[in-house]
Amino acid sequence: MTDKTALTPSTHTTPPAKFSHGVRKGNILQVAGQVGFLPAVEGQAPTPAGPTLREQTLRTFANVASILQEGGASWDDVMMLRVYLTDTAHFTEMNEIYNAYFEEQDLQAPPAARTTVYVGLPAGLLIEIDALAVLG
Amino acid sequence: MTDKTALTPSTHTTPPAKFSHGVRKGNILQVAGQVGFLPAVEGQAPTPAGPTLREQTLRTFANVASILQEGGASWDDVMMLRVYLTDTAHFTEMNEIYNAYFEEQDLQAPPAARTTVYVGLPAGLLIEIDALAVLG
Amino acid sequence: MTDKTALTPSTHTTPPAKFSHGVRKGNILQVAGQVGFLPAVEGQAPTPAGPTLREQTLRTFANVASILQEGGASWDDVMMLRVYLTDTAHFTEMNEIYNAYFEEQDLQAPPAARTTVYVGLPAGLLIEIDALAVLG
Repeated sequence: MTDKTALTPSTHTTPPAKFSHGVRKGNILQVAGQVGFLPAVEGQAPTPAGPTLREQTLRTFANVASILQEGGASWDDVMMLRVYLTDTAHFTEMNEIYNAYFEEQDLQAPPAARTTVYVGLPAGLLIEIDALAVLG
Repeated sequence: MTDKTALTPSTHTTPPAKFSHGVRKGNILQVAGQVGFLPAVEGQAPTPAGPTLREQTLRTFANVASILQEGGASWDDVMMLRVYLTDTAHFTEMNEIYNAYFEEQDLQAPPAARTTVYVGLPAGLLIEIDALAVLG
Repeated sequence: MTDKTALTPSTHTTPPAKFSHGVRKGNILQVAGQVGFLPAVEGQAPTPAGPTLREQTLRTFANVASILQEGGASWDDVMMLRVYLTDTAHFTEMNEIYNAYFEEQDLQAPPAARTTVYVGLPAGLLIEIDALAVLG
């Protein structure tokens, strides 16, 4: 029996329902859908990093990264990133932010696979990302 | 060579195409997108449990659970639940139903990660859920 | 430390951002979201196989298959296919194409699980598919 561990960075707001921000079991790590919320402040509702795609995307990456780290993983372990945008007009800018961010990460392994689709998100949110990682 | 097994609960309608309701291979179990269809009745088209989000969500959970069970897994093994809703206005109610349901499941392990996005679904369907589980 | 390998078929256009068309690590293989682009021609922008659902679906399958093959996998190893359509009216036709395609593949194992949802895609694209496979 392999332990299943919840990954709950101290920076994260409490999930709005009975789910985990991330879970790890054996060498599989799943990150729940992250958005551009700033680090949690007790007694305050979750607040996006800003209204722009850039602010939200960079904060979303930081939120994914902190869950990976909590589970002993890094971007190098990520197999798949699912990127949910709300507007096809954001694709080019998101890619620019995406490329610049991963350039800075100094990856040792090939980058993750990715799917980008356009969906509805709660008002004010422009991007959501989740991740599947395989460690070891 | 590890066997890949199709998981086909007796309660389920025949898939509308050449896919499996669930598959297990080794310790990985994937549940296909489930909706709130009632148990199959021969000669009848698949019928949703009702028009409400509550009815459909609870029936969708039951359908996911029966596939997990068919594969020797339980909710405790689930790493990720993808929840597809059609309307952001349903988020709060879905979370209430979600929380109450998982309270009743008496989980021994941390709850799964989750992503919720808003998409189009076939007419009359308000929710779809799929699941990735890791056993053992 | 298991190697993470990028899967880059020669037929594929360069990804429009820092992601891999597919990655394999250990026995897990993830295929990025594929669309119906024809084999890459140097100096030309990616071009869909045609305007119809049939043309794009068959080409998308070919693109997924070439990534699986590059990673030493086949359709028999695929656990999950995520099908993104843009219009619920396409479901029936997509299933017909889907069934006919997989009939021809002469699968030795049960077919993959599947989730189909309706999202926005870039202009001109009617279908996107990604895949998770477990080898061995």
